Amino acid sequence: MIITLLTDYGLDDYYVAAMKGVILSRYSKARVIDISHGIEAQNVLSAAYVLLGAYQQFPAGTIHLAVVDPGVGSSRRRIILRTDRYNFVGPDNGLFSLVTPEPVEAFEIQPAAYLPASVSNTFHGRDIFAPVAAALAAGIKPEELGSSIRDPKRLAPLAEVTGSSIKSKIIHIDRFGSAVIGIERRQLNSDVLPRSFAVHAGGAVIEVQKRFYSEEPVVSGEPFVIWGSLNFLEIAVANGSAAAVLKLSCGQEVTLELG
Amino acid sequence: MIITLLTDYGLDDYYVAAMKGVILSRYSKARVIDISHGIEAQNVLSAAYVLLGAYQQFPAGTIHLAVVDPGVGSSRRRIILRTDRYNFVGPDNGLFSLVTPEPVEAFEIQPAAYLPASVSNTFHGRDIFAPVAAALAAGIKPEELGSSIRDPKRLAPLAEVTGSSIKSKIIHIDRFGSAVIGIERRQLNSDVLPRSFAVHAGGAVIEVQKRFYSEEPVVSGEPFVIWGSLNFLEIAVANGSAAAVLKLSCGQEVTLELG
Amino acid sequence: MIITLLTDYGLDDYYVAAMKGVILSRYSKARVIDISHGIEAQNVLSAAYVLLGAYQQFPAGTIHLAVVDPGVGSSRRRIILRTDRYNFVGPDNGLFSLVTPEPVEAFEIQPAAYLPASVSNTFHGRDIFAPVAAALAAGIKPEELGSSIRDPKRLAPLAEVTGSSIKSKIIHIDRFGSAVIGIERRQLNSDVLPRSFAVHAGGAVIEVQKRFYSEEPVVSGEPFVIWGSLNFLEIAVANGSAAAVLKLSCGQEVTLELG
Repeated sequence: MIITLLTDYGLDDYYVAAMKGVILSRYSKARVIDISHGIEAQNVLSAAYVLLGAYQQFPAGTIHLAVVDPGVGSSRRRIILRTDRYNFVGPDNGLFSLVTPEPVEAFEIQPAAYLPASVSNTFHGRDIFAPVAAALAAGIKPEELGSSIRDPKRLAPLAEVTGSSIKSKIIHIDRFGSAVIGIERRQLNSDVLPRSFAVHAGGAVIEVQKRFYSEEPVVSGEPFVIWGSLNFLEIAVANGSAAAVLKLSCGQEVTLELG
Repeated sequence: MIITLLTDYGLDDYYVAAMKGVILSRYSKARVIDISHGIEAQNVLSAAYVLLGAYQQFPAGTIHLAVVDPGVGSSRRRIILRTDRYNFVGPDNGLFSLVTPEPVEAFEIQPAAYLPASVSNTFHGRDIFAPVAAALAAGIKPEELGSSIRDPKRLAPLAEVTGSSIKSKIIHIDRFGSAVIGIERRQLNSDVLPRSFAVHAGGAVIEVQKRFYSEEPVVSGEPFVIWGSLNFLEIAVANGSAAAVLKLSCGQEVTLELG
Repeated sequence: MIITLLTDYGLDDYYVAAMKGVILSRYSKARVIDISHGIEAQNVLSAAYVLLGAYQQFPAGTIHLAVVDPGVGSSRRRIILRTDRYNFVGPDNGLFSLVTPEPVEAFEIQPAAYLPASVSNTFHGRDIFAPVAAALAAGIKPEELGSSIRDPKRLAPLAEVTGSSIKSKIIHIDRFGSAVIGIERRQLNSDVLPRSFAVHAGGAVIEVQKRFYSEEPVVSGEPFVIWGSLNFLEIAVANGSAAAVLKLSCGQEVTLELG
């Protein structure tokens, strides 16, 4: 049984390894695969996007454990969400909004035999979520780990359409400095943006679209938009980092005007 | 059989993968789990702390291989330490001080059939420690890999108590910029610091304690202390990095005055 | 069956996890081991060097999947190379030059039953190379995945000898800031550089050789050369980063004068 891990813990500390040790101690047949531990600290939306990019490639039955958790130690709930193919485990803060339907079967994790007697205030990844994921991998049902709830938290919609204008924001910046915007291909009627369009982001106006990053003509430093591999609109710069060149950061507002 | 890896090699080079290849070539059933490869270069104390945070989560029988090794190529010894639950493999420089009792069964690794004929001067992780860990995983006893020694190196004590004052230093800075101090909860008589206390670190004086990071009131930029998930005292800053805000670095002296 | 992964995708995004999910969904028994995902973006030569450092440690039969691919989406070919011990999968841009003989059995990957019907323009690691690696791991022969070709691309030679002078360049900078030069030990007649030699790099002249990094006398900040663990010449600096101190970067010209 595969358990994937997604956190903002980084890989330099003991946090991720402690979670893996807990999982393997409780269910030795688990196969633990990292999605990412390099999420911008406490950026729940960016984590939701990265999870979206990876989760559906995994076999049915996979347990996706995600912890980006600004509210650790507070009263925010800890949840299990169950879909046709997967179980998701983590804090109830909208992290699973992009990968689960609405409504979705949801359970609030309760103290139980499967959890350690002593739980820290600072590290629920180790003390709660890892034991729960191991229990699910071992075949324990979500019903035995929590009580049914109806209203797991969801993130606000990513884009707002007004006439020929779509307002959204930057939801993720990737390793190459490309800025992902919360606008999806399916929201437009066509694969190609109309002849005349303009993306407004951080003071810049971008009117060039490419199909792949090295498509000719390559003008170093020139920004363009491209449909990324998850079919979200991205702002990229030839031979450079769009985030650096255009001074973009997560959360910044972006508008697409269709001409 | 699980072999964990802890090094300061980083993940960008071939070093860690070469070690994994050596292990899997010599013992194909090994399950290799990374603890961290992002230890500050040659910072043995920080490595000892990270190992402390992860090692005991792993099942009995796990082999913990750690290489943070400023003296590679010199005459420092290479050792195996054996405890009730684990074997530890690495250079003899105090790296295992926080995770092994004193005294501990110790063996100095000797050239043997299990090691390659040719050993580089620069990469004992690949040429010595990985083959030894693979041999241990395959069931070879420490006695067959080395000769018993009595005095493995240990790090100096982390804290010094004088009256109502405890002097220590910063032993690790984590991804979030929290600075871990070498003072443990069990050294105090109470979970809560006394009403009046002061932590002196890098010119700052901290007199606020929190139970969890987001505990109210949250004052952005305000430093506080907190018992971390390993029960060491940490200096943190709300919505920020304590290391950046207070200009803290590993090795810096810290004093806790109990009022 | 082991599949290794080498990319410049970084570990912060979903890219590597998506590839792992694809592989495990198609061949659940695969053991996926990371070589590195921290290659400098689009630096094919640095990737070739890192692959060289790790590949031969893995057991015979291992599939080495590498994607550093400035030309993704363009007409560059996708290839499988087969040697006595391994299969290599990736773009045809010279990435495998340092680890395969010349000539080598080569196949151009063709659309086939093993590939998804829909392939993105931006992410061939997920859509082409991961499915091909999974197919190879499952026992499908390269012949069934592509058509034989004769001229896979190779990188230019790394060093040029003129009399007692060897001209090369910096091919990789490692985590510690050591700069690897494209000059190999076997190109010289002796393990020890002659009494009088000089390495010219970025304005500096280096005339000191060490056998291991901490060899005495250790003069902080002093640059020296050393044979690295792959037997390439490296420029290092005691207690520091050669790249930072001497302002070195990949691609920079270096000359070794033998006296």
